[in-house]
Amino acid sequence: MSRQSVILKSRPVGAPKPGNFELVEQKMPLPGPGEVLTRTIFLSLDPYMRGRISGRASYAAPIPEGGDMMGETVGEVLASHDAAFEPGDIVVGAYGWATHVVTPGARLTKIAPPAGVPLSAYLGVLGMPGVTAYSAMTDIGQVQPGETVVISAASGAVGSVAGQLAKRAGGKVIGVAGGADKCLFVQETLGFDACIDHRAGSLETELDVFCPEGIDVYFENVGGALQKAVWPRLKVFARMIMCGMVAEYNAAAPEPGPSLMAVVAKRLRVEGLIVSDKPHRFAEWRALAAPWVADGSLKYREDVVDGLENASAAFIGLLEGRNFGKLLVRVGPDAI
Amino acid sequence: MSRQSVILKSRPVGAPKPGNFELVEQKMPLPGPGEVLTRTIFLSLDPYMRGRISGRASYAAPIPEGGDMMGETVGEVLASHDAAFEPGDIVVGAYGWATHVVTPGARLTKIAPPAGVPLSAYLGVLGMPGVTAYSAMTDIGQVQPGETVVISAASGAVGSVAGQLAKRAGGKVIGVAGGADKCLFVQETLGFDACIDHRAGSLETELDVFCPEGIDVYFENVGGALQKAVWPRLKVFARMIMCGMVAEYNAAAPEPGPSLMAVVAKRLRVEGLIVSDKPHRFAEWRALAAPWVADGSLKYREDVVDGLENASAAFIGLLEGRNFGKLLVRVGPDAI
Repeated sequence: MSRQSVILKSRPVGAPKPGNFELVEQKMPLPGPGEVLTRTIFLSLDPYMRGRISGRASYAAPIPEGGDMMGETVGEVLASHDAAFEPGDIVVGAYGWATHVVTPGARLTKIAPPAGVPLSAYLGVLGMPGVTAYSAMTDIGQVQPGETVVISAASGAVGSVAGQLAKRAGGKVIGVAGGADKCLFVQETLGFDACIDHRAGSLETELDVFCPEGIDVYFENVGGALQKAVWPRLKVFARMIMCGMVAEYNAAAPEPGPSLMAVVAKRLRVEGLIVSDKPHRFAEWRALAAPWVADGSLKYREDVVDGLENASAAFIGLLEGRNFGKLLVRVGPDAI
Repeated sequence: MSRQSVILKSRPVGAPKPGNFELVEQKMPLPGPGEVLTRTIFLSLDPYMRGRISGRASYAAPIPEGGDMMGETVGEVLASHDAAFEPGDIVVGAYGWATHVVTPGARLTKIAPPAGVPLSAYLGVLGMPGVTAYSAMTDIGQVQPGETVVISAASGAVGSVAGQLAKRAGGKVIGVAGGADKCLFVQETLGFDACIDHRAGSLETELDVFCPEGIDVYFENVGGALQKAVWPRLKVFARMIMCGMVAEYNAAAPEPGPSLMAVVAKRLRVEGLIVSDKPHRFAEWRALAAPWVADGSLKYREDVVDGLENASAAFIGLLEGRNFGKLLVRVGPDAI
């Protein structure tokens, strides 16, 4: 029996290309003492992975050339040398663009989805992106009733949760997304107050229309032109949640940013957040939000690509904003 | 009897020049209902005043052309229509580059300096600059024992207090100042661990020598080349206290700043602070620090210029870093 995985064949310069990745076949790994073998059901694809393949020092060690691509999975335990797990358990915490993964049991978490909550939700709305949005809004955004909140990448896995939390906190929430279909989803399904299509019209003009008094909280996932348009519109005491700048991930060198004089003059708080610093928030968020997912009050959308062999093309599209909703790869069936 | 004041004759373009200011003589003003007339003993000159004369919108309304220049004073009450004050009281809270000021009593605070604390201290170490440093370190800096702290404008009114507070919190404190005399003062008198002379050698090299593991807290008063040198040396979870960027105040338009990607990758917190947002901190700081001033454990230095007619030249020098210590104008004697 063999295992398939996608390896980083070569480091991309600029936008990744299909040739930077390769699907390879290997011998099935065996779990050692304390380890667990899972078969992958869903694989998560996320923008942060661009940083892991750049070779530049970032907040996580880069993936070596020839190494497996990394990514969160939901999997089923096939064999376990950790007494806490047995075959058939459904777990999160195994990483890899692979059909099978061996992981120390200590890193795995068993999940038991309530009725109405699919396994895939544990990689999106209830997984790393959902916890990112929740931690960011709790620790940095702290939206007050009546405040104006702008959410970039609003139809995405993080933005969609962040905006719905801002609505629950009583904010006026303006999304920014690419394309009329995404904007319709953000307004009609997610229930944001408005959504600006960054592919149509002028960001500056639209922001002035929807945020006539300025912006109290900006959730930054994209950088680039949107950051430039938002920056001068931040109000006194505004919070800027720095979660990502995906529009600039493919750039060879960072562009200059805004003058920080405005941080003094407007007493801005510009703060970065990476969810792996907040491990305690995962269980907290799942307990809070799983009932909302089950009862349908917390909306989410998934973009599921079938088959590990299609992961690299999907990832390349993700960096161009071609996905619509949380991007996942269906690697195997829920049950075999 | 007449009153003298310095007015803003014309708005400066770039660095202010003597001709932008004029000393004028006017009729002595009379206090109306609820108002108090003070004679000025000391006038405070501070970098933030550059923003008030630019005409650009800032965090405070600009001074109109022809209007009195604004500045904190320590004064003696000459006449009062507020029952809370009587002639002879010493007060802070009257504003103006003027020998005499009329102020609503509600804006004034009576002070009673303990032995060993001069009146001038209420404009510096115990006044706005001291409270700025205290609020910034309490609300944003939050120095932990062993952390590396860099203080710009370290010999100045704000930086000198900020660095001493960082030392009290157990930090390793590196000052940056302009000139050997200021650096000597920062190390020998203020007791910082080291001081970098930004007029000699390479900032980058010196920062690498004194902060080999990077910087946990940066107290930003200056901007410009120092900000550029500090930014890539900020550690994961570093705090950057944005208090001022005096090196860029005379610039016609703001320079670009650093890419904010590092805020994500290193989970930086970049936050601005203006002391007028923290009125509760004034009494708190005076109660805490007046004993430290009296017993000599909190060091400070004043640069006192004699006579209101010399205020504008002193202010021009302040923006070039020519003062050494808290810049004050002696407008009148302590007692008459």
